[in-house]
Amino acid sequence: MHNYKITIQYDGTNYHGWQIQPNGRTIQGELTRALSLLDGRPVTVHGAGRTDAGVHALGQVATFFLERQFEPERLRDAINGNLERDIRVVSVEPAANDFHARFSAKQKTYRYRIFTGAVMSPFDYRYVLHFRGSLNVEAMREAAAVLIGTHDFSAFTVADSEVENHLRTLQELEIQHEGEMLIFFATADGFLRYMVRNIVGTLIDIGRGHRRSDEMADILASRDRNRAGTMAKAHGLTLLKIDY
Amino acid sequence: MHNYKITIQYDGTNYHGWQIQPNGRTIQGELTRALSLLDGRPVTVHGAGRTDAGVHALGQVATFFLERQFEPERLRDAINGNLERDIRVVSVEPAANDFHARFSAKQKTYRYRIFTGAVMSPFDYRYVLHFRGSLNVEAMREAAAVLIGTHDFSAFTVADSEVENHLRTLQELEIQHEGEMLIFFATADGFLRYMVRNIVGTLIDIGRGHRRSDEMADILASRDRNRAGTMAKAHGLTLLKIDY
Repeated sequence: MHNYKITIQYDGTNYHGWQIQPNGRTIQGELTRALSLLDGRPVTVHGAGRTDAGVHALGQVATFFLERQFEPERLRDAINGNLERDIRVVSVEPAANDFHARFSAKQKTYRYRIFTGAVMSPFDYRYVLHFRGSLNVEAMREAAAVLIGTHDFSAFTVADSEVENHLRTLQELEIQHEGEMLIFFATADGFLRYMVRNIVGTLIDIGRGHRRSDEMADILASRDRNRAGTMAKAHGLTLLKIDY
Repeated sequence: MHNYKITIQYDGTNYHGWQIQPNGRTIQGELTRALSLLDGRPVTVHGAGRTDAGVHALGQVATFFLERQFEPERLRDAINGNLERDIRVVSVEPAANDFHARFSAKQKTYRYRIFTGAVMSPFDYRYVLHFRGSLNVEAMREAAAVLIGTHDFSAFTVADSEVENHLRTLQELEIQHEGEMLIFFATADGFLRYMVRNIVGTLIDIGRGHRRSDEMADILASRDRNRAGTMAKAHGLTLLKIDY
């Protein structure tokens, strides 16, 4: 058996997220179908990050074992030939047998984009949240700084029987401001479900003045999901890269 | 009556081009519907460039008369409120009564993009032609230079009873090369139907070595559509701007 690591980009608009499910197209489902066809047997595909419905990726990583051995570029083209154009394998590498897309990951980076102007580009509206109004970026940055470090992030996730440990280390939470676009970059050793979107939603509340930036410490310490802001919509979120 | 000039962006993927038609959604049709609703009477919308099905715009311009007088930003928001998100009015200006989107235009600029790499981005495939292979950019630039100036461009259009004069002045035909992306910029006092796509198609033939760059002068002089290359697909083309 041969272990392969692939890097994938996708426009998540028309998918029910990463994780395979009986009804509805998913990224993992499409890759599983394409790879099982190629290898002539059911292939199990492991992804680094289980992106939710509507979330995009520029640097998702997946691993899988194939019985057949492939030259990397030929395998890349063969998989792409069996996928819709909104999912693309951008690279393939042979991997050591103990390499696993999720368990070997050291850190992950997500990007969230918000456009605050009056007219959203017809080319961006699937990928960028439209919040028409002004946001106090300095207040948002103050609140974001509170979250850096190792914390129990229960306030920013949902009850999930699969994940018991809610401690994560957030290495970076940067907010870039380019004209009418706000771009958030979040890097951590791992993210809880909905964590980036709940953090961004809370920062939007602070940016628009519905909450003060100094409330962020209390929200984090409460570990209570009901204290955080409304979860920001999925389509503004993109999985940028996985570091190993 | 009040004359208005609007600047429009659209993703042409899901439209049958600019020009209104009985069956199928068009950009002019959608604008006509939205404006007629607002003014309570049938409004005639004139566009600067009649983009074909699948062609996009970042700077299309249109003019129309309304009985009602509107504050520009209110009119912009009111029109956008009646359009799908893949068409956006980005600005509205009151215009002199003799200003006409098409007849007042001094020059127009189109962009055509070609990606030559192995894996097309899932975010770009609707807007960029995928030509997998290498293109000789220097040969294409040599051939492009032949077209600059005032010429009869009949070789690059179709028989069209509406347009008798096929003389156009091409001010610029630049080819930028950024990594695996080729970006063509074409500026002229006006373009014949399919002119940019037929020129790009012929340049692709030259770039891939199917024709020599010195054939371009003969093709142009022949005024014979059968001499030019296969027309490049619509989705790589974007109307960038109209100068007045």
